[in-house]
Amino acid sequence: MTDHRQLIEARIAEWCAALPNDGLFPPMAYLMRLPAKRVRPALVLMGCELFGGKAADALDEALGIELFHNFTLMHDDIMDAAPLRRGQPTVHAKWNVNAGILSGDAMLVKAYQLMAKRSEVLDLFSRYALGVCEGQQRDMEFETRLNVSVAEYLEMIRLKTAVLLSCALQTGAIVAGASVGDRQLVGEFGEHLGLAFQLRDDLLDAFGDPAVTGKQQGGDLRAGKKTFLLIRGAECAAQKRSTVLDEELTKPSAQRDVSRMRDVIEQLGVRSEAEAEVLKNDRAAQEALAAINVPEYLKAPLRALAAMLLDRAN
Amino acid sequence: MTDHRQLIEARIAEWCAALPNDGLFPPMAYLMRLPAKRVRPALVLMGCELFGGKAADALDEALGIELFHNFTLMHDDIMDAAPLRRGQPTVHAKWNVNAGILSGDAMLVKAYQLMAKRSEVLDLFSRYALGVCEGQQRDMEFETRLNVSVAEYLEMIRLKTAVLLSCALQTGAIVAGASVGDRQLVGEFGEHLGLAFQLRDDLLDAFGDPAVTGKQQGGDLRAGKKTFLLIRGAECAAQKRSTVLDEELTKPSAQRDVSRMRDVIEQLGVRSEAEAEVLKNDRAAQEALAAINVPEYLKAPLRALAAMLLDRAN
Repeated sequence: MTDHRQLIEARIAEWCAALPNDGLFPPMAYLMRLPAKRVRPALVLMGCELFGGKAADALDEALGIELFHNFTLMHDDIMDAAPLRRGQPTVHAKWNVNAGILSGDAMLVKAYQLMAKRSEVLDLFSRYALGVCEGQQRDMEFETRLNVSVAEYLEMIRLKTAVLLSCALQTGAIVAGASVGDRQLVGEFGEHLGLAFQLRDDLLDAFGDPAVTGKQQGGDLRAGKKTFLLIRGAECAAQKRSTVLDEELTKPSAQRDVSRMRDVIEQLGVRSEAEAEVLKNDRAAQEALAAINVPEYLKAPLRALAAMLLDRAN
Repeated sequence: MTDHRQLIEARIAEWCAALPNDGLFPPMAYLMRLPAKRVRPALVLMGCELFGGKAADALDEALGIELFHNFTLMHDDIMDAAPLRRGQPTVHAKWNVNAGILSGDAMLVKAYQLMAKRSEVLDLFSRYALGVCEGQQRDMEFETRLNVSVAEYLEMIRLKTAVLLSCALQTGAIVAGASVGDRQLVGEFGEHLGLAFQLRDDLLDAFGDPAVTGKQQGGDLRAGKKTFLLIRGAECAAQKRSTVLDEELTKPSAQRDVSRMRDVIEQLGVRSEAEAEVLKNDRAAQEALAAINVPEYLKAPLRALAAMLLDRAN
């Protein structure tokens, strides 16, 4: 993982340094240079090595996936009117909305240029890029809908988050020349990992230690964001005639008692349900990985990554 | 041309009909269905036929180019806060800004899917797509700059408009298997045609008959938009110590005397200069076309199209 990080950071630094420093390009370099986990490009390299390929051979595609991810962040931050990203001003806050729209567009084109070497990668990338757009569309739609089911929520995070992890791993697998069956299995691994990862994120937001996550505890609850916890919480509260969540949600967000909301979510058993959902997806991911037809030692890095992502405290 | 129009309209209608009618897709179908000249997709088909290919073989790429063009319109209209497009509400006005950003993004991905059959087409398309983004960036930058030179303006319209016509023709040429040299020549033809086309547009805005153009006469002048006429007009006015344009431009736009501005632009000789620039580019386009190594009768449709685009009254 450390080797991958170094390869990726070096490639990103080199790419940013080669950009013209005016017009469309400074916002791209700014966003790409903000410190980040680089999970998606690491998955491209790991998907490649899993099937005996060299990480260096998949570096362009790894950069392409990270560019695509940052393009979606640039546009999502505009749509969400978010002032901060990774603790720093968002692109539209630092420049302006138009710069964010247009630099984002150009960034998507740049991502395509890096994904264009193999037609199989390209087809996969386009399909999954549409999925990510659709996921974001649903996420926005949910904000104004009263009733969102758990199934709809899980499908939204599958599209918005999980498919890109799956795409990253499959891209690496294609570069390494994996069989179609193995490629599908590693894609399944990625999708379940992505679902577990996002549900872990939801849990961390409500129950994580702010000193470790670096975020205000319960930010999603305060905002009334329809995550697994609040959607399933509302269902269970209705069954058990608990009115706490309703009471809090009718208050203006600044006046919500977040610790009261968190406590009732825990009492209703929703925290355990979410933990069980994380475990279920983790198990499904492990099963897909187990079925892949390569020696066990090649799978170890992906197992370690999954453990790290799911046990993480931040 | 009529045959091409029918092929293109049928392909667009079929494409729109196959879209899901919720989420990201209705804004795409809405914009694509607005009546339009379809110049860019027609150029794809004509570029193909020029080199002996069949129009039907380039229909996917023609649709891809039109989708890309409409993606740029969707995002440009947001950036320009334009309420109307082709006489109808813009996508962000009819839906909202977020829908316009996200549907536009997905539309760019859809365009890529159609351009992905041939790697040569794909490379070309990405390069030219970046050019279009850069052209839009400069166009916006010019709004807040005091001094823009004629050369900078011509480079901006080259990027924003002309390169896509060039890309359309070259795409058709690649589908038909044209030689690299011929492909470059048809690209040059398209670029000069695009420059002439945009300058003709600038002239029509100021001097066209509103009954024919369907637009308010002098809209660009009233808005103080830095087109060839106003940029070159300011230069000539400074040399000849004419203060009319300065006087009008210091007024709020609603109070500007557009006919006075138009008259002084004519008196300063700038209208004739713009006409000469149209002719110069038309000649350069014709020269490039003449140098292409195919029988003369195959070139007739492109000559006719150029004549139609440059002699047009709307």
